[in-house]
Amino acid sequence: MIKTGIVGISGYSGGILLEILLKHPQVRVTYVSANNTHGKVDTIWPQVAGYTNLTCEKFDVKKAAKHCDFIFLAVPHTIAMQVTPGLLKAGLRVIDLSGDYRLNSIQQYKKWYGAAHTDAKNIKKAVYGLPELYRENIKKANLIANPGCYPTAALLGLIPLTSTHATAIQSIIIDAKSGVTGAGRKAKLQLNFSEINENFKAYKVLNHQHVPEMELYLSKISKEKFTINFVPHLLPVNRGILETIYVQVNKCLPLKDIHKIYTRFYKTEPFVRILPLGQQPELNNVTKNNYCDIGLATDATNQLLVITSVIDNLMKGAAGQAVQNMNIMCGFDEKEGLH
Amino acid sequence: MIKTGIVGISGYSGGILLEILLKHPQVRVTYVSANNTHGKVDTIWPQVAGYTNLTCEKFDVKKAAKHCDFIFLAVPHTIAMQVTPGLLKAGLRVIDLSGDYRLNSIQQYKKWYGAAHTDAKNIKKAVYGLPELYRENIKKANLIANPGCYPTAALLGLIPLTSTHATAIQSIIIDAKSGVTGAGRKAKLQLNFSEINENFKAYKVLNHQHVPEMELYLSKISKEKFTINFVPHLLPVNRGILETIYVQVNKCLPLKDIHKIYTRFYKTEPFVRILPLGQQPELNNVTKNNYCDIGLATDATNQLLVITSVIDNLMKGAAGQAVQNMNIMCGFDEKEGLH
Amino acid sequence: MIKTGIVGISGYSGGILLEILLKHPQVRVTYVSANNTHGKVDTIWPQVAGYTNLTCEKFDVKKAAKHCDFIFLAVPHTIAMQVTPGLLKAGLRVIDLSGDYRLNSIQQYKKWYGAAHTDAKNIKKAVYGLPELYRENIKKANLIANPGCYPTAALLGLIPLTSTHATAIQSIIIDAKSGVTGAGRKAKLQLNFSEINENFKAYKVLNHQHVPEMELYLSKISKEKFTINFVPHLLPVNRGILETIYVQVNKCLPLKDIHKIYTRFYKTEPFVRILPLGQQPELNNVTKNNYCDIGLATDATNQLLVITSVIDNLMKGAAGQAVQNMNIMCGFDEKEGLH
Amino acid sequence: MIKTGIVGISGYSGGILLEILLKHPQVRVTYVSANNTHGKVDTIWPQVAGYTNLTCEKFDVKKAAKHCDFIFLAVPHTIAMQVTPGLLKAGLRVIDLSGDYRLNSIQQYKKWYGAAHTDAKNIKKAVYGLPELYRENIKKANLIANPGCYPTAALLGLIPLTSTHATAIQSIIIDAKSGVTGAGRKAKLQLNFSEINENFKAYKVLNHQHVPEMELYLSKISKEKFTINFVPHLLPVNRGILETIYVQVNKCLPLKDIHKIYTRFYKTEPFVRILPLGQQPELNNVTKNNYCDIGLATDATNQLLVITSVIDNLMKGAAGQAVQNMNIMCGFDEKEGLH
Repeated sequence: MIKTGIVGISGYSGGILLEILLKHPQVRVTYVSANNTHGKVDTIWPQVAGYTNLTCEKFDVKKAAKHCDFIFLAVPHTIAMQVTPGLLKAGLRVIDLSGDYRLNSIQQYKKWYGAAHTDAKNIKKAVYGLPELYRENIKKANLIANPGCYPTAALLGLIPLTSTHATAIQSIIIDAKSGVTGAGRKAKLQLNFSEINENFKAYKVLNHQHVPEMELYLSKISKEKFTINFVPHLLPVNRGILETIYVQVNKCLPLKDIHKIYTRFYKTEPFVRILPLGQQPELNNVTKNNYCDIGLATDATNQLLVITSVIDNLMKGAAGQAVQNMNIMCGFDEKEGLH
Repeated sequence: MIKTGIVGISGYSGGILLEILLKHPQVRVTYVSANNTHGKVDTIWPQVAGYTNLTCEKFDVKKAAKHCDFIFLAVPHTIAMQVTPGLLKAGLRVIDLSGDYRLNSIQQYKKWYGAAHTDAKNIKKAVYGLPELYRENIKKANLIANPGCYPTAALLGLIPLTSTHATAIQSIIIDAKSGVTGAGRKAKLQLNFSEINENFKAYKVLNHQHVPEMELYLSKISKEKFTINFVPHLLPVNRGILETIYVQVNKCLPLKDIHKIYTRFYKTEPFVRILPLGQQPELNNVTKNNYCDIGLATDATNQLLVITSVIDNLMKGAAGQAVQNMNIMCGFDEKEGLH
Repeated sequence: MIKTGIVGISGYSGGILLEILLKHPQVRVTYVSANNTHGKVDTIWPQVAGYTNLTCEKFDVKKAAKHCDFIFLAVPHTIAMQVTPGLLKAGLRVIDLSGDYRLNSIQQYKKWYGAAHTDAKNIKKAVYGLPELYRENIKKANLIANPGCYPTAALLGLIPLTSTHATAIQSIIIDAKSGVTGAGRKAKLQLNFSEINENFKAYKVLNHQHVPEMELYLSKISKEKFTINFVPHLLPVNRGILETIYVQVNKCLPLKDIHKIYTRFYKTEPFVRILPLGQQPELNNVTKNNYCDIGLATDATNQLLVITSVIDNLMKGAAGQAVQNMNIMCGFDEKEGLH
Repeated sequence: MIKTGIVGISGYSGGILLEILLKHPQVRVTYVSANNTHGKVDTIWPQVAGYTNLTCEKFDVKKAAKHCDFIFLAVPHTIAMQVTPGLLKAGLRVIDLSGDYRLNSIQQYKKWYGAAHTDAKNIKKAVYGLPELYRENIKKANLIANPGCYPTAALLGLIPLTSTHATAIQSIIIDAKSGVTGAGRKAKLQLNFSEINENFKAYKVLNHQHVPEMELYLSKISKEKFTINFVPHLLPVNRGILETIYVQVNKCLPLKDIHKIYTRFYKTEPFVRILPLGQQPELNNVTKNNYCDIGLATDATNQLLVITSVIDNLMKGAAGQAVQNMNIMCGFDEKEGLH
């Protein structure tokens, strides 16, 4: 039984983390904090009424260290790097759900997140928490950079191809569609129901801060430098990401062969499902669970591959993957608390 | 051709007013203002690109008076009563879409809107702009208190009954459901897509500020004092109000007779449709038009009458009704600009 | 470990039952059937891929009896009464989610469901599966009539009042709003996305087949005959029911006293939560769980009580409650598989 | 004043056509028919109550010819080619909203629509009704093949580029998202609210019957053969199409130059709006109007162009464009009835 805390309980990821951890048989939630929302946890999230008597308070590193072995940071970027060094120093293991420790470079961070990074030491040490790629490193890590939602779907969809056919790839275009919880939980006119409902649009066209994260790990794993053209859109649903990934290759890759590569690649993975040929993944099948479902198709020439990858942005794209990482770090069954 | 201005262009009602008036053949929109949103009108509301070159500025009574004969106030309550006296003094005719001039009494206003009323003179003079009841007064009015959305659906649904069977009525319960635009256009966490979508709840149970407005005009018209029990709910749709009205009466009122009373009452009304017996109104049929559709049913004893009344909260419940009032005041065809 | 089967796997209730039972630690799903949908279960419900290798076939009583101890019937009414006698005779325990065994009288059944009842013997013996009222009977039952979704929310919302103040009650009006899965899973133009989305309407006004079920058990428990005026509406959400219940009483019932009665009544119930005064329940808090949340309010005279009751129509309103009943019948922890 | 008829009034396009034509000042609707839906038009489409007394009947070519000068066919493909020859012979002008006359070749038709074409003569004569490309031919046409919804958004988004830089283009990928009315109005489980709502998926990946239509007219106009990779997705909204079009070119095309080309190309077009650089089009701005809004962006190398094109699938993608064609054919103002 480990003692865990959650910093940033009032956002969507924090709320889902709380739900999962309260029901996780090998975990006790012993500390929760938030910046502007205080009081009994079950008035903040009435869904968990009956599961906890915790009170949410302003973050205090000493209190956190006193009550926990393990901390999840579900705070906005720039906040995570302020509290992480103290938590690590106090001997806690940390999983950061923000973008603060993903890019491995303070220059890249500055460029894409528009702020100076204040923890150059740990950004180098953090392990990228995508279990399908870095399970062994995760086991021993003290600081996990939990992957972004878009990169999770993109990397899982691309890695089997890029790691086996890197030189054949000519271009990668990702057309992504995300549910609204992906934008966070904040008062903002553009997120109002009447602005989103019955509407649809692209945003940050070819200019999203998740692109360098995708390119970094795709290139690392595949030992080849890749450029990704990425256009996200805001979908009028609460949860879920679907990415339609278009890969142009310079030789004929028969669909059946590709399918075999993908199936083998994820054969023993508990949370990735390759669909039978002819089927397309849909949000419904991954809502509120930790799966990534992947579909495959090609054009007549077999030189354009269309990979469709879906996840729940709050589960495999955030809180679910964070718990999967914790399970690995603690030696629990990787699926514990996630079915 | 009259020259009209709109104060408060950035809200939903202001935006719809703008769309209607720009296409109205006997009107020119010559002035628009808003408090925090400035610049070209077609960047604020891209739908009207190509219809106007107007620029939105901060409200200025002199400029408004110089450019307009007629003003619509689509501002929050308490703001309307600040600008109305100056506009009237400058000789403009005013239609106020807020609650500031509806209650006829500064005491009631204080009680329900929580603010002192600063224009005691005009609150007495304002004409309640429900054409089906007050058409003759509207013709000559200089200041119209445009009805609230909930009272519009409630009064149109109840008046034929209360004005003919006042003493038989024992209780009135209104269970109302409103689309989200009814809450206005503002940054507010509770109005976020993910908080409203796939959700549903009651609010201000038996305690909504539209209740005294309903009771006032229902009692006036029917010459009998009525109490209304009113519970509103927030519906996950953009536009539309449906009110299910339960009226208990102390004698048997056969449904066919009731239906005849309603049909006759609205026989010549251009914007009220009584459905055939057996049919129920639905939001779809009134979305983006100015109709109020009404359905009727009774229980086996004919002593419980269920009246269902639907409108588009931004049309018959706000901007559409305001234009209907303007048409009446200016001697235009009452339907002009509204089909 | 008991062996259970599900008849009618292709509907929403059947699908949810399957999900719950596959993860239930004391149950093995050993048989599933459907009328028109056959093949591997995980192609019918891709969400459960990885959890089962079962194949769905046409119903066969012998096969069911051979493979199971326990059967859930998630079939349309009239079908349940055809298969139940055979299953009982074969020694299985049966939970029927349809309306076939709820009304206790073949005359009432004929009147409300429009079909002759063919199993007069068992309709008398069936136990009404609302654990909060009939837990002791459920323990020993061989045939459970699982309650309708609307009656579940209504009875839980009303029983504490009617069983303590029966004679004070003058009228009960229930304004109900249900998500679309409540209408079942079938090809029907009126259920198309574009017909429901951004729309809202009442249906079966004062004439729904769940009314006699509510009246029957309300009267039984409260030892007083009640009439219920019930108007359901179709809500553009997938899951959830909210009922706004208006009760007029002939004496002053202070809200605090009522709240105390409700809190005590459900003190030890695992799945009913009475909200603190001032709070209103919302669908979100019960989606995909088995809770019924209840809010209370009164008007100034304390003679009109407004009870708001929410459930997930597929959980506490169908599959969740069925599993709760199974847990009781088998002596399992009542919450097993339901959190 | 011309006399028009609509064949196929019960579908979404037929219904919208009816609404537009009933309010069009130079048109009288004198005949409507449908295959399975009969009776008073205002019981089929309650929105038009008060606008017409027409009765919908089974199609009869003699009756149609007797009552009309002009016919709109809003019927499924294969039906249109059965009735068109008779209507033309009777001297009527015909606008067909189905796919029957778009492909110019009975072989292509057979391949993509899976049925033998029975009117080889007229498929050659039909004019493709995209006014921005074929206005002069439309004026004199007797038979218009009204464009498909996806091709309308695609062609308007691509033509300025392909007709000026055909040889520079290396690949075209279109990622399309369509509202549910695009799938037609029919009872189908996959179109049920609960199957679409909160869900999202791709369908007919690289294999949609609108592809040959796009390729045909794109190649014709641009005098270069193009291949289009097209992946459509079903969006949980009622109306609207957004296509994100990715064009790879073999030279640097500065964004400002591209923007100038597009702005000039559509300078005098009443229904195409090129957005200022930096803005992205959204469904909201074209819902229920006849506009196509187009946004432009490029990557850092200026060799990947991202064109976003939005229309209302029932307006510019079907009924609105049909009326625009009628206006051109009859010499009316092209915008009549469409604002």
